Amino acid sequence: MTERARIDEGLAFLLRFENVAWYSDGVVRILDRRIYPLEQRFVECTSHLEVAAAIRDMVTQSAGPYLAAGMGMALAAHEGRGLSDADFATHMEKAAYALSHARPTTSDRMVAIVEGSRAAVAAVDRADAVDAAFAFALDEVSTRYAKIEKMGVQLAAKFPDGGTVMTQCFAETVVGMMLRAAREAGNEVRVICPETRPYLQGARLTSSVVADMGFDVHVICDNMPFHVMRTRDVDVFTSAADVICLDGHVVNKVGTSQIALCARTLGIPYYATGIPNRGHATIDSVHLEERDPAQVLEFMGIRTTLPQVGAYYPAFDVTSPEFVTGIITDKGEFAPRDVARYYG
Amino acid sequence: MTERARIDEGLAFLLRFENVAWYSDGVVRILDRRIYPLEQRFVECTSHLEVAAAIRDMVTQSAGPYLAAGMGMALAAHEGRGLSDADFATHMEKAAYALSHARPTTSDRMVAIVEGSRAAVAAVDRADAVDAAFAFALDEVSTRYAKIEKMGVQLAAKFPDGGTVMTQCFAETVVGMMLRAAREAGNEVRVICPETRPYLQGARLTSSVVADMGFDVHVICDNMPFHVMRTRDVDVFTSAADVICLDGHVVNKVGTSQIALCARTLGIPYYATGIPNRGHATIDSVHLEERDPAQVLEFMGIRTTLPQVGAYYPAFDVTSPEFVTGIITDKGEFAPRDVARYYG
Repeated sequence: MTERARIDEGLAFLLRFENVAWYSDGVVRILDRRIYPLEQRFVECTSHLEVAAAIRDMVTQSAGPYLAAGMGMALAAHEGRGLSDADFATHMEKAAYALSHARPTTSDRMVAIVEGSRAAVAAVDRADAVDAAFAFALDEVSTRYAKIEKMGVQLAAKFPDGGTVMTQCFAETVVGMMLRAAREAGNEVRVICPETRPYLQGARLTSSVVADMGFDVHVICDNMPFHVMRTRDVDVFTSAADVICLDGHVVNKVGTSQIALCARTLGIPYYATGIPNRGHATIDSVHLEERDPAQVLEFMGIRTTLPQVGAYYPAFDVTSPEFVTGIITDKGEFAPRDVARYYG
Repeated sequence: MTERARIDEGLAFLLRFENVAWYSDGVVRILDRRIYPLEQRFVECTSHLEVAAAIRDMVTQSAGPYLAAGMGMALAAHEGRGLSDADFATHMEKAAYALSHARPTTSDRMVAIVEGSRAAVAAVDRADAVDAAFAFALDEVSTRYAKIEKMGVQLAAKFPDGGTVMTQCFAETVVGMMLRAAREAGNEVRVICPETRPYLQGARLTSSVVADMGFDVHVICDNMPFHVMRTRDVDVFTSAADVICLDGHVVNKVGTSQIALCARTLGIPYYATGIPNRGHATIDSVHLEERDPAQVLEFMGIRTTLPQVGAYYPAFDVTSPEFVTGIITDKGEFAPRDVARYYG
């Protein structure tokens, strides 16, 4: 690839994020992934608190909240433009807290992003505060994506030629990166996506990425992974992770642990991808988010049960280290029990 | 209970079936369980072929098709009223085939019902053919329900006091019978129903039965059983079975095997209920139905994916004997590998 082509690809890469979460002129626009691909609709936020609410309400998911939080910090800087220096600093501190704590399970990663943004803003003149936060958000996503690209390459190396990969939920960039790497290796893998109720990230988002890239993709319901693994020669199960604890526990979208169990029972390897979380030495410090049970009782707004029926909506589950074949990071693959070595 | 109360309960019991599948005056009305409880709508069939099509298209599910097939035979007798004796016999034979083969996985049970109906019709004067088929259908359902009541009592005895039971799909009468038995024993169990995509039998049908009976009931998505079992003290997992092979394999709604695996991993017992199928000495003779993948790509008629995305829809899966704690029949409980003794 020429330098010019590399720059063009880099630009195209960054512009993609306009369709995830983007700050411009006092507004953060966030693609509403709750309804995509049925409709391409954006939520427009004119304050950082609206951005935090959008993150809480699952307008954007997977890695979307990380970019949204960064863009929310640019918006916060814009909102604070008339404040004194001292009030501005307090305002940014509060904004950082609100944005990073919108969803409890991933708050430590969010904290790292908003604190980085605060430091970047503090390092420049007040007139450049918004630009500094915006640049930090893009820089953070670029750095993160470069790491994810490395994971994608390692993951693709696990796929047998013409093999079948099962995913869980929406691993966003990892899916794109692993498929790009597979294609560069001439390996046209097939992908099976459990639909991932209640939000259907697998059906709506993951399968869209795979289909857009021209790979064969089939959606199944969340009750089918074990049967499909037994009857359709699934070679690899993979997911991203919302938290990777240093003791090897993997926290991810509910359902991951169940599929990991099915995979282990059948001798199918399960690879989780991500950066281990320094803030979680063990699983005990992770707060597993429970969301509004009403979501489970409806589908795209249609109620499915009688009014007196209740529901549970655990958003995440925990996969024990013994169910994880390997954790793939930007620094290589680790055995789950050994993942603390990432920092060692 | 007085004799009179028993008769009244028996009458009320039979009249319930008016809301499942019912022959009257040249029409079979079948409750459309694809949409219940959102709407109470009936499909009206004026020929036995329409009844067969309704069974194929999942208008009625669980044990509903058995009653619908019996009522379809009454309709077939009505349709054939002007035929010669020889043509009538051929007509009934063809009707029996069409009705019993509408869904392949359960066809051997269906064959037993329609053949019983044919014999009942052949034993009476032509003028009484419709009545004979109708009476046979009701008699068959009464006999079957008496057996299921025995299963419900045994199942309820497995529930610890105030315990929690997880179901799968729609075990129809078994659910009602086990809860009636639990209540008679003063045991107000709690019930957790995985929703059972794509048709949501768990969310729409099972939870409605449980809620109607006044028990605590919570719906979860199909990716949550393992996590919920680990965090909410599930005591027993139970399901009906579409086929119980004499070698102990259980064929039931897809997802059953996955939940059974989760249960075994956590030491939670799994009881399947039903009558072993003499027609299936081993699992090898069972044809596992694959249904229209389009159902997986939509929810209540709303498409969830891009048009180029495919899907798989295996309707059933197979649970191996080692994942089944016991098979509860009207003749008592059997170890799965020992279930052939039901006939011995």
